[in-house]
Amino acid sequence: MVKPPVLDALPLAIELIRCPSVTPADAGALDTLGGVLKGLGFTVEHLPFAEAGTPDIDNLYARIGDGSGAGPHFCFAGHTDVVPVGERNRWTVDPFAATLDQGWLIGRGAADMKAAIACFTAAASHFLADHNGRVPRGGAISLLITGDEEGPAVNGTVKMLETLSARGEVWHACVVGEPTNPRALGDMAKIGRRGSINGTITVTGVEGHVAYPHLADNPVPKLVRLLAALDALHLDDGTGHFQPSNLEITTVDVGNPATNVIPRVATARFNIRFNDRHTGASLDALVRRALDATGVPYELETRTSGEAFLTEPGELSAVVAEAVEEVTGKVPELSTSGGTSDARFIARYCPVMEFGLVGETMHKADEKVRVEDLERLTRIYHGMLRRFFRTPRG
Amino acid sequence: MVKPPVLDALPLAIELIRCPSVTPADAGALDTLGGVLKGLGFTVEHLPFAEAGTPDIDNLYARIGDGSGAGPHFCFAGHTDVVPVGERNRWTVDPFAATLDQGWLIGRGAADMKAAIACFTAAASHFLADHNGRVPRGGAISLLITGDEEGPAVNGTVKMLETLSARGEVWHACVVGEPTNPRALGDMAKIGRRGSINGTITVTGVEGHVAYPHLADNPVPKLVRLLAALDALHLDDGTGHFQPSNLEITTVDVGNPATNVIPRVATARFNIRFNDRHTGASLDALVRRALDATGVPYELETRTSGEAFLTEPGELSAVVAEAVEEVTGKVPELSTSGGTSDARFIARYCPVMEFGLVGETMHKADEKVRVEDLERLTRIYHGMLRRFFRTPRG
Repeated sequence: MVKPPVLDALPLAIELIRCPSVTPADAGALDTLGGVLKGLGFTVEHLPFAEAGTPDIDNLYARIGDGSGAGPHFCFAGHTDVVPVGERNRWTVDPFAATLDQGWLIGRGAADMKAAIACFTAAASHFLADHNGRVPRGGAISLLITGDEEGPAVNGTVKMLETLSARGEVWHACVVGEPTNPRALGDMAKIGRRGSINGTITVTGVEGHVAYPHLADNPVPKLVRLLAALDALHLDDGTGHFQPSNLEITTVDVGNPATNVIPRVATARFNIRFNDRHTGASLDALVRRALDATGVPYELETRTSGEAFLTEPGELSAVVAEAVEEVTGKVPELSTSGGTSDARFIARYCPVMEFGLVGETMHKADEKVRVEDLERLTRIYHGMLRRFFRTPRG
Repeated sequence: MVKPPVLDALPLAIELIRCPSVTPADAGALDTLGGVLKGLGFTVEHLPFAEAGTPDIDNLYARIGDGSGAGPHFCFAGHTDVVPVGERNRWTVDPFAATLDQGWLIGRGAADMKAAIACFTAAASHFLADHNGRVPRGGAISLLITGDEEGPAVNGTVKMLETLSARGEVWHACVVGEPTNPRALGDMAKIGRRGSINGTITVTGVEGHVAYPHLADNPVPKLVRLLAALDALHLDDGTGHFQPSNLEITTVDVGNPATNVIPRVATARFNIRFNDRHTGASLDALVRRALDATGVPYELETRTSGEAFLTEPGELSAVVAEAVEEVTGKVPELSTSGGTSDARFIARYCPVMEFGLVGETMHKADEKVRVEDLERLTRIYHGMLRRFFRTPRG
């Protein structure tokens, strides 16, 4: 067997950023990645999914070694899709040029999370080179890469996991390359995330003229009473690993331009970020009880976009924390803060954590990462693989 | 002196409806009316007004006889402007064709209030014919007709009254031709109207991500608390002539399309229709006290579009009620219900009441009045003139 090449992350990161893969576009990103992984000996397959009402999405699964679970299987997960550019005139460079400037790599997806995918790949090349191109102990390394994380997240990670699992694929640990560090590499790894549920409350009344209120039924004060009940909800005080669950009323809309008209319909939307004391279903019921107690008739629709998950500190967190400390000298905080990621779906299959680059500029203009952090993150991921394949699994 | 012609209301009503005078357009309506009034011996003048930020408006003042106040002066007031057509496909006829169908006159402005203006004119022609073309007792009859009642009402009746009054014009009684009858001619005359004040409440917070609420400051629950305080306000229990004052929250708007974003600004608008226990200024203060009590910082802007007014039942109401009963056999209810009209401005100058056609279809598709009601309303207005110029003023 020819010894596979040892790669640097930077050239691949640049190539990926130059694909303008704003969800749901792929723009060649997955083929670029797949070609490099094939060169390392990975078996690469595209897993496109479609569903009515959502955009068609391409995804990529690449594995080297035996993924049946007979040997240890470590998975790197992430996404090549990126959020839109936003206000173009707030960028000082072309967002898809992957500009190098004074030690920074600048471009949409630099932090979230094309550079981390390049580091996955580079780390795998180093680890495979350490072992003559083979995964030790009869195990496997895989990359589970979706093109639908920043979008509806319907035709991506969820369906990939279902399909692969149904085919007998077994994972023992997964690290997602989201930009978990607030300020500097090594600050923070994520061991869980809060869940998220969105709700829409609609109150329907009877339209009329403000001069004849007895002929109308104003839905606005009714909605105000319902929202006051929502605002008064105390969900919990947090847990050992999670901050308190939190409800935000994100919008109220009537859209009545006429000062002399009582409107017919008033709607409000809310979002709850919740810890593992709740589920989407339990919160739907809790919210309905609070609204019912007002006596005001309403309609409520909820959609849980992700349940809370927690990977209790243990074997995986030790692997991650030690690898981070080895390179950065810092013991990362094991946090459950922040928004959701596809890790919430992976948690159903195996222990999962998140560790990636510095997220300060993610989703913003001039999104950027330090070039030196790519080399350091590559060493951290490499260290995770070394530790994982050394660690006897319990 | 040539005896002036005696006119029917219907042909003039048709001519006026055929002018598509949707505020601020005049479309020839005032010239049509002015021409007819000149033929009856009236002195006719246009009183156009303009003000920055509002449309230029033409208005018409026509008087016959001495308006100095030396003799009795009766004024008919109204407007030739009309509200827009609305949904054109809900009309069964051309809104500006003035269609006659099975005893109905159909068209925009038929009820509100071009046909009533035609009845003013026809009644004046009859009364002048009774007196050889002269106003008895050295008095005057005038028509004060604006083109800005359905719009901002800035360049219409208010400025006409100021201008004419400054020139020494004095009125002793005024009837406005608004469609005051809910179902049938003779049901109701108005002796007053509630006032109206509009308010806009703005709460400004700090935008942020729902996953990081500690970095944001959500204005929506704060606005909910302010609106709950507004909704809890008890203004009064009504008076002998007025129903209770009433507050309606007409809209709440945030306009945040993102389910994961805490918005920066939330606004709500309200309208209060108030009786003569309040003024716009007293309500502004009362609302601020209620909002201040919540402890929530807010901005409030209010605009009083009209103070409440009341013409206590007396000489004028007797003139009106007797004239109505003579023709319809019914004693009209003397009411203060419903929306505002320009009578609120006229009340500062002389006793004013409102009596016109049946308002059931006003502002709606297929706005219409009974053709026979034009002849009956002409007789009623004629009866008012007869009684007014007979009645010694106190």
